[in-house]
Amino acid sequence: MTTIAILGSGVMGSALTFPLADNGHDVRLVGTHLDGEIIDHIRATGVHPGLGRKLPDSVHPYQLEEIEAAFDRAEIVMSGVNSFGVGWAGQRIAPLLRPDTLVIAIAKGMVAGEEGDLRILPDVLAEQVPPELRARIPWAAVAGPSIAGEVAARRHTCVVFTGLEQAALDRLAATFRTGWYHVWTSTDLVGVEVCAAMKNCYALGVGFAQGILDRLGETDGPDRNHNYEAALFGQATVEIGQLVHLLGGRPDTPYGLAGVGDMYVTSTGGRNVRVGRLVGSGLRFSDARARMGGITLEGAAAIGVIGGALPALTGRGVIGPADFPLLRHLHAVVAQDQPLRMPWSAFFGGDAWAGAAAAAGAGEPG
Amino acid sequence: MTTIAILGSGVMGSALTFPLADNGHDVRLVGTHLDGEIIDHIRATGVHPGLGRKLPDSVHPYQLEEIEAAFDRAEIVMSGVNSFGVGWAGQRIAPLLRPDTLVIAIAKGMVAGEEGDLRILPDVLAEQVPPELRARIPWAAVAGPSIAGEVAARRHTCVVFTGLEQAALDRLAATFRTGWYHVWTSTDLVGVEVCAAMKNCYALGVGFAQGILDRLGETDGPDRNHNYEAALFGQATVEIGQLVHLLGGRPDTPYGLAGVGDMYVTSTGGRNVRVGRLVGSGLRFSDARARMGGITLEGAAAIGVIGGALPALTGRGVIGPADFPLLRHLHAVVAQDQPLRMPWSAFFGGDAWAGAAAAAGAGEPG
Repeated sequence: MTTIAILGSGVMGSALTFPLADNGHDVRLVGTHLDGEIIDHIRATGVHPGLGRKLPDSVHPYQLEEIEAAFDRAEIVMSGVNSFGVGWAGQRIAPLLRPDTLVIAIAKGMVAGEEGDLRILPDVLAEQVPPELRARIPWAAVAGPSIAGEVAARRHTCVVFTGLEQAALDRLAATFRTGWYHVWTSTDLVGVEVCAAMKNCYALGVGFAQGILDRLGETDGPDRNHNYEAALFGQATVEIGQLVHLLGGRPDTPYGLAGVGDMYVTSTGGRNVRVGRLVGSGLRFSDARARMGGITLEGAAAIGVIGGALPALTGRGVIGPADFPLLRHLHAVVAQDQPLRMPWSAFFGGDAWAGAAAAAGAGEPG
Repeated sequence: MTTIAILGSGVMGSALTFPLADNGHDVRLVGTHLDGEIIDHIRATGVHPGLGRKLPDSVHPYQLEEIEAAFDRAEIVMSGVNSFGVGWAGQRIAPLLRPDTLVIAIAKGMVAGEEGDLRILPDVLAEQVPPELRARIPWAAVAGPSIAGEVAARRHTCVVFTGLEQAALDRLAATFRTGWYHVWTSTDLVGVEVCAAMKNCYALGVGFAQGILDRLGETDGPDRNHNYEAALFGQATVEIGQLVHLLGGRPDTPYGLAGVGDMYVTSTGGRNVRVGRLVGSGLRFSDARARMGGITLEGAAAIGVIGGALPALTGRGVIGPADFPLLRHLHAVVAQDQPLRMPWSAFFGGDAWAGAAAAAGAGEPG
């Protein structure tokens, strides 16, 4: 039996208590300062309100004020916050870690410096920890296609645990693996994390397709807009492959679970797809986000960061001006509130006849 | 204005008359011996019954008996039949071709010899033509994510025209391209065609996921089975990449429109997904096919051909026994009527803990 402490009781952190509990581990689930009501609800009813499902009996809920007790003798620590909370989580867990504590994180995203230098979130988490201790901790992350509700429903799920130290990954994988939660490992930390961050960008774009049907008044018509979605999926795969290559990831990482697999599942729904649908229907992004109550959107944030780094990378000659046409347009739509006007002719190396694309006309949606 | 003759008035061949008509070409649509009622219906009403949509006025329907008139002075010939009709179509068009007629085909599939040697359908089509003439015709094919009904609805669609001669591809692309029908070209004929054939195999597997929900009685429950679909999508991408490599295709072909893009769109629906759903719900494949009226299933046929070639390829040492675990299982389910039992631990190089997979238990669906 291993003791695992999880900081963050959102749906994903909480869903991962299911395979851990199935394996008989001691699981402590700690809410953040935003999670107080979730923990109260679990204590009162056993049910996680976001998952709509009773957590396993062996999962122990803790409020943030009780974090020291929760982390006492924890051998594995999970950062269960989303991309917006990674720095905060690192600061909170830093004093509670010991040398050789295994740390695994679930947030997906990137950060960028002024020169367009992109960095992965496990590095941001680790930076909050003093260097001497930091160097003794084998930092790891979860990636791959994994909708939280399905994990909590014990549906077959295939994921990748990634980090730089194979032995630590093997221990983590053995702790989580069940007959339905299938874990592979990869030491291509940067490649896996780039895929994990980028797929959120493109999932927002896939949402455009359904919105265009709404705009055409064909939402309930016989013909869908899957060809559009699939074309974006293909171009997204090309661009993810290029960024993984650029940042030194392994060439095959985008073409398995962490890349196309995760992008497939993310494209099936969620907030990013929904806001994309509103944009496709004709709203500017700022209006679409307002319509959704101004909620946090990890895909939009990732577009802001990664798409926002492209001009600097282009200026430095790291990439060409014709590279990443889809991500550049997503950035124009999301971060500059420009109207949707898909640059089809620039896709797939730009071989398509530009004249025909221009002939699409300004009035044509998407 | 170019004259184009299409043999086969199914939904895809007929849908491709829309971009051609938009470009002002003379389009002749010839029904096969199975298409007599379709042509009668178009002549009587203008509407294609399968597409549920009026064909452009400039499209001229012909019965098979009128094929000579339809093909008279045709500069471009399209084989619009599916994979089951390619040999027949080649025999019918052979006497009507002239040197330098451009031929483009839409069927997706492969054929295999006894040694497991796999061949692409454009080669099967071309073989029906006497060698001297065959050598003077630039054979080409259409691939990429393209649902026929969406093409006929003039939705944005991105496709790949593939063949060995770039000049012919350029002429074909210029003939078809519109502001919404976006055409790229690729001289990686074998790579593109392998992707096109294989994606039908895996789309059938993606259907299992929904069927498992049916079996669990959770069809209308809150939690889907998208993690399962995405894991199969990831493993399918790995296997397609491997077969493309094996047959000499280019390494990047599977990771764009013709590969992951086409597999994405094929996974959204159609006959192959529906029969997969029935298998996922607990039926053996033979019962599932019978439930669907014994219709032809290109995905099942492709599984039979490509999956059926794997033992011979393994025996010859061309591939290893652990390669293609998903396609091998699809073959067991479809061609050997075995029950569904997904070999999760064999996926992604087989790194997953086999013990945990075995612990899944015989009673667990999928």
